[in-house]
Amino acid sequence: MVDILHRVGITASPNEVYQALTTRDGLAGWWTDDTQGESGIGDVLQFRFLPGGFDMKVLELEPNRRVLWEVVDGPEEWIGTNVVWELKQEGDYTIILFQHLGWKEPVEFMSHCSTKWAIYLMSLKSLVETGKGAPSPRDVQISNWH
Amino acid sequence: MVDILHRVGITASPNEVYQALTTRDGLAGWWTDDTQGESGIGDVLQFRFLPGGFDMKVLELEPNRRVLWEVVDGPEEWIGTNVVWELKQEGDYTIILFQHLGWKEPVEFMSHCSTKWAIYLMSLKSLVETGKGAPSPRDVQISNWH
Repeated sequence: MVDILHRVGITASPNEVYQALTTRDGLAGWWTDDTQGESGIGDVLQFRFLPGGFDMKVLELEPNRRVLWEVVDGPEEWIGTNVVWELKQEGDYTIILFQHLGWKEPVEFMSHCSTKWAIYLMSLKSLVETGKGAPSPRDVQISNWH
Repeated sequence: MVDILHRVGITASPNEVYQALTTRDGLAGWWTDDTQGESGIGDVLQFRFLPGGFDMKVLELEPNRRVLWEVVDGPEEWIGTNVVWELKQEGDYTIILFQHLGWKEPVEFMSHCSTKWAIYLMSLKSLVETGKGAPSPRDVQISNWH
């Protein structure tokens, strides 16, 4: 098993960051315009992009501290993996410790997703700090795989 | 052992990308203004940032295909790790498969470095595609750890 790990700091309260991770409007503001579903525990959020998308089952919600998703549909390599968002405050920053856990193999697609997650985390940072993210389809393109 | 993996595509020839990875001017154009040393096999490149830096011994140079560095000085967590740059052509793109291999533990600093590598890879992409990168100290800040 191999994992993608990232860390970004956002100059906002943990609650502002948590809202961007746990409401449909917040998620649509930084990840993809086409975000559907409900965001409570046990609900499934549907994120769609031009080439496809991901269905995330919300497994844990600890307000202002932690969000845990399980990928229940999407690319084969993603199904069964977990996405973890841990938040903590350090001075003026809310620190996000991001993990996309449980990839079976370090395939090339995983390398792509690692870089792309960093780009989306910067979109999330921008959304919370400035009110404007860069969700799909206006996301920053990183390669021929978009 | 845990690894950082990324993938970006640059609309340029493998040789243009290779030059940005294997010449002092190229490296200074996207990673840090303060790049010293020689870039041949067995040489040590010194990259310096505001809080410190990294000394990279060049172990392998396969023109337009592969570069391998060993970290010989820098933060304790980096020493002994390897940085691998693999290049391949796909249509109009040169694809970089980036690996920072051999971290002992997935510490929080590794998560930071993973995100920051993605930012520097985008700086490299911008340098090669447009002539203008964002090396330190003009790099994109991602958190309280810069």
